[in-house]
Parts: sequence; C-alpha cells; structure tokens
Amino acid sequence: MTPRPTINDVARAAGVSKGAVSFALNNRPGLATETRERILAVARELGWTPNSRARALSVSRSFAVGLVMARPPETLRADPFFPSFIAGLESVLSESGYALLLQVVPEHDHELRSYRRLAEEGRVDGVFVTDLHVDDTRPALLAELGLPAVIIGPALGEPFWPAVGVDDGPGVAAAVEHLVGLGHTRIAHVSGPTAMVHGQSRRDAWSRAMREAGLPEGPFAEADFSAEEGASATRRLLDLPEPPTAIVYANDLMAMAGLSVATGRGVDVPGRLSITGFDDTELAAHVQPGLTTVSTNVLDWGRAAAERLLALVDGRDPAPTELDPPRLVVRGSTGPAPS
Amino acid sequence: MTPRPTINDVARAAGVSKGAVSFALNNRPGLATETRERILAVARELGWTPNSRARALSVSRSFAVGLVMARPPETLRADPFFPSFIAGLESVLSESGYALLLQVVPEHDHELRSYRRLAEEGRVDGVFVTDLHVDDTRPALLAELGLPAVIIGPALGEPFWPAVGVDDGPGVAAAVEHLVGLGHTRIAHVSGPTAMVHGQSRRDAWSRAMREAGLPEGPFAEADFSAEEGASATRRLLDLPEPPTAIVYANDLMAMAGLSVATGRGVDVPGRLSITGFDDTELAAHVQPGLTTVSTNVLDWGRAAAERLLALVDGRDPAPTELDPPRLVVRGSTGPAPS
Repeated sequence: MTPRPTINDVARAAGVSKGAVSFALNNRPGLATETRERILAVARELGWTPNSRARALSVSRSFAVGLVMARPPETLRADPFFPSFIAGLESVLSESGYALLLQVVPEHDHELRSYRRLAEEGRVDGVFVTDLHVDDTRPALLAELGLPAVIIGPALGEPFWPAVGVDDGPGVAAAVEHLVGLGHTRIAHVSGPTAMVHGQSRRDAWSRAMREAGLPEGPFAEADFSAEEGASATRRLLDLPEPPTAIVYANDLMAMAGLSVATGRGVDVPGRLSITGFDDTELAAHVQPGLTTVSTNVLDWGRAAAERLLALVDGRDPAPTELDPPRLVVRGSTGPAPS
Repeated sequence: MTPRPTINDVARAAGVSKGAVSFALNNRPGLATETRERILAVARELGWTPNSRARALSVSRSFAVGLVMARPPETLRADPFFPSFIAGLESVLSESGYALLLQVVPEHDHELRSYRRLAEEGRVDGVFVTDLHVDDTRPALLAELGLPAVIIGPALGEPFWPAVGVDDGPGVAAAVEHLVGLGHTRIAHVSGPTAMVHGQSRRDAWSRAMREAGLPEGPFAEADFSAEEGASATRRLLDLPEPPTAIVYANDLMAMAGLSVATGRGVDVPGRLSITGFDDTELAAHVQPGLTTVSTNVLDWGRAAAERLLALVDGRDPAPTELDPPRLVVRGSTGPAPS
C-alpha cells in the first residue's frame, strides 16, 4: 500500500513551503486565492485526504497559545499594559482549557527562532504578536510556518493576520481637544519610541489633532516610555526659551515623572503647566494633582484577542468584538492656560 | 508475559497514594524516610524496573514549568513584582529550552484544580507557588501529585518543597532603624493583607524593629497593597488625634499614594511626615520628593527560582544561590523628625 501523502509531499509537488500547504489546507487567511487553489488541486491529485488532515490536526493540537516578546526585562518591568493584558487573555483561555505559553527573549532574532521552534515542536496552536514594528518580519514568518496569529494593536495594513486593538488616536485627540478647549495653544508631546507602532501612532494623533485645531505642532521630545526618560524630556521642554503650557505624554509613567519634575521646580500644575497621560494606571488617580489621562480597557482587549485567536485556531468565524474606544478621564492635572 | 507493574500497582500494594509512589521513585524530598523505604521495597518486590521508570519520565517530560496564580486581575495589574519576576524566570528558562505556562485563575479552589489538571495531563514538569498563605494547602497537594514545586517567598517552615525568596525582614528593619536614627518615635505601618505571607512578614518585621528600638508599636493600618487602600489608610493615620511622624508602607504603590495624600493636605514631606516604601519601583526615584524605599532584586530572585526548579525537575543538586539582601535606598521622602 502506498503511504498516505504528507504535507511535505504536497509542498514539493506544488513548489511551495510546507507552511503554505498547512495554510491552504486549514483554510487560513493570508494566501493569494490563486496559490491556495493550486495547493488544494495538488493535494487532491496526490490523494491527500481529510482523514489524514484530521489526524494531523488532532495530533498537533497542544491547547496552548504563545506570547513571545523580544524586550529587555527592564521595559517589561515598567509596562503597565503587560499584567492587565495577560489577565484579560487568561480570563478567556482558562475557560477554554487553554494555557498561555510565555517566552521573553532578548532580541528580535531570538523571537523569530522561538516561533520556528514552537511551530516545529507543536507546542502552541497559535500566537499573539505584540509590539509590532514598522517593517516587522514576524507576521510573514508566522504565515510561512502556518502558525495562526493575532496582532495586538493597530495592524498598519498587515496582510496576513487579523489585528485586535484599540486605536490610540481618538484618545490622544481627546486630550489635545480638552487642552485646546482650556485655551492652550503651545502643547508639547513626549512620545514613546517612534520605531514602535504605539509610539508612532500616538505621536501622529497628536500632530493631527494640533493641525485640526489650527495650531502649530509645538515642541516634541522622543522618549522610551520610561519614567527616567519622561523626566529628562520634561526638563528639556521646561528649559526651552518658550516652554509649553501643556504636555501630552504617551503614557502615564512618563507623565507622572514629568509631573514630579514640574512640582520639584516649583512649576504649578495645572496653574502654569497642564499634563496628560495615557493608560489610566492605578496610581494616576492618586498622585497630586490627579492625572488627566486616557483610559483604555486593556483587560477587555486581552479578552478580545484571546477570543479572536481561539476562533482562528478552531477555524470558527469569530464573534464580533466591540472594544470600548479610549476615553479621556479628566482630573486635576489639567486646567486653563496661564494668561 | 506478565505486564510490567505500574505506579498504580505499587501504590495499591504499599497502601499509599500514586503521588507518594512517584515521589519515592523520583527521590524527591517530602516523604518520611520510613515511608520512602517501604515504597521502594514494594516496588522492588513487584519487579518495577528503572526501565519503565525512565520511560515514564521521558514520556512525561514537557519542557514547560507552570505558574498558576489565584488572583483577581486587578491586583495582578498593580503588582510591580509580577513582570520583573517573570522576566527573571524567563531569562533562565529560555536558555534551557523551557517555556513558562501561565494560568491566572479566579480563586484558590480553581488553582488546586489547575494543578491537578497540569499534573494529570503532563503539561508541566514543575511549578512555582506564589502568594503562599498561612495554612496553604497547595504544597501538600503538589506533594501528593508528585509535581515538583518551588515556593516563591519565605517558606514558613513549609515541609515539602524548597523555598526561594528574599527575607523582607531586614529591609523593613533598615527602614525603621533609619527613621529612628532621624529621631522619629511615632512610626506607623501600612501593611498588605496579613493573610498573605509577605503582608504578614513585613508587618512582623516592623513590630520587631520597633521593639528592638525600645519604642511602642505605633499606629497600624491594614491595607491590600493597592494605591486606593494606601491612600485611605494614610487619611486614617493623619486623622488620628496624635498622627505619626513617619509611615513605613509595605509597598511603593501605597507609599506613593500616601505621599500624594499628605502633599494634597499640605502636610510637608519630609518636614512633617517621613515616608518609606518597599520594592523600589521605577517611579519611586521620580516622584517628588523621591521615595526612600527598600530595593530587592526581583529579577535575580526569578532567576534563582527558575534554576532551583529546573534542578529539582532534573534531580540535580541545585547550585548554591545567594540572593542579595534587601537594601534601603534613601531619597528625599525621609528626614529628621519634626521638633
């Protein structure tokens, strides 16, 4: 008896990667229709049967999903997103009997190797991809590996995988509009790394909102989301010959460090300087004055991402998910522009 | 041919649980010597061979270790320990080709079920146990399941498993001694939940240090490590007919919330009130005034815990680990007692 054709046989005959075959056979998005149909035709021709497919699927199902993050531990330590997001993921995964396989790796190359290994060893049924960079190679690699993925954050036209995320833009825009409404015209921005998607998207939203208010862009300082760089960016902005009357920070940690720099210099907040954050971290309501910030429901975001990935793994149509848009929470750190 | 005896057969013949047999056969600590020897004698008698043992071991090895945490997502969100600790774990695990299987579950019973399932399904080779409670039933369950475990934190005489942790005591004592040296005699404490080991151990260290300084205990307020409860505990303490001149908080988050409550009321820090934290979180150096706090190297702690668990899983003698003792970092939030 001729042995049943394997995915490798199909790949060789169709002249594509094994990942592409797995993709086509599992009816996952990300292949050109033409390519998919060619692969399916070859598979039929070779006598590849749904039987062997079902077997392959049941053997490979690991009931775990992966989250690989290439980050220096220090940034992980400071990121308020991480624990809330994990909690959201877990609330869905544990109900479905899924576990989360977590790997923190030192750098990007390492992350690519991890995905390869996770896929080859069948350790996970899908992965979450975070911290998407401009020109990120991970989505394409995952498509090649046939490992289902959900992008966390704005997709930036990502062709392979669905993205689950909240658009930061309206939150940053609401902060700028709030400040414009209070009479501010010189509104600075302290961003995260603009090589990171959420660094860039918040920066863009600030630029756009200033433009739409008919105002010049105002001073800009790039930082790295850390308290340390948030503080030093604030010092630079306050040292300007004509300092801003308001600063929109890309996260709470930098904003709270900036608030302390201002207070420490005797700059009254909000009398002489208004400050806004992003994240609505636990401490934001409890600093003095309370931090005006943008609240996003990260827990819900984690839940939605997990639901989307499990649907993708199961080949189910995903339930429509509606994430709350970011919401401006006004506290004491913003007030009328100084006259 | 008679089938090879299984662990179940040995358990039945010896009149012990399957977990106890697995324990004895894998030479893990936690069984009375007498019990272990009886089990091994029965196993030899039945002809249980190292061969089948080796097979069972190789089959069950999953190259993943587990961390199951029964916590409401909100506390996970606020805990600065979690991301640093995970980063420390990962730095060792990823080098060894191990992944971390993470589950966040709503409550304690759920956590016990998770351990059972992880053990039965062979999903992990060992687990970390955090947030040890007084009278915690998890260590005994894990011993019964034969699932190697490392306790994170002080062991409190835990008989089954090794504990890897930093003793908080000297850190809290150093904070109290620092304040006593500055002339404070009325030193309050805002604790975490005293049902949790690190809530209780920090509270005990404060009491002991006050006693050793020859001072009465001073006002005490139990809180839950959150900014919210840290703030309200501070309000209660400042409302006392004779408020404290210094407050030792069990973590930075509560201390920073307390600092803001004081500042907001016009209570000068450190002129009228000195404040200390615990954790040395990223923001601690950047609030105004900078927070005097206790620094523990949580990253190293995570590394040491992972090394200890992998040694236990492999049946190796662990390399001796020396964790840095907690260290007091003096900043601007502490000063001489008001005269």
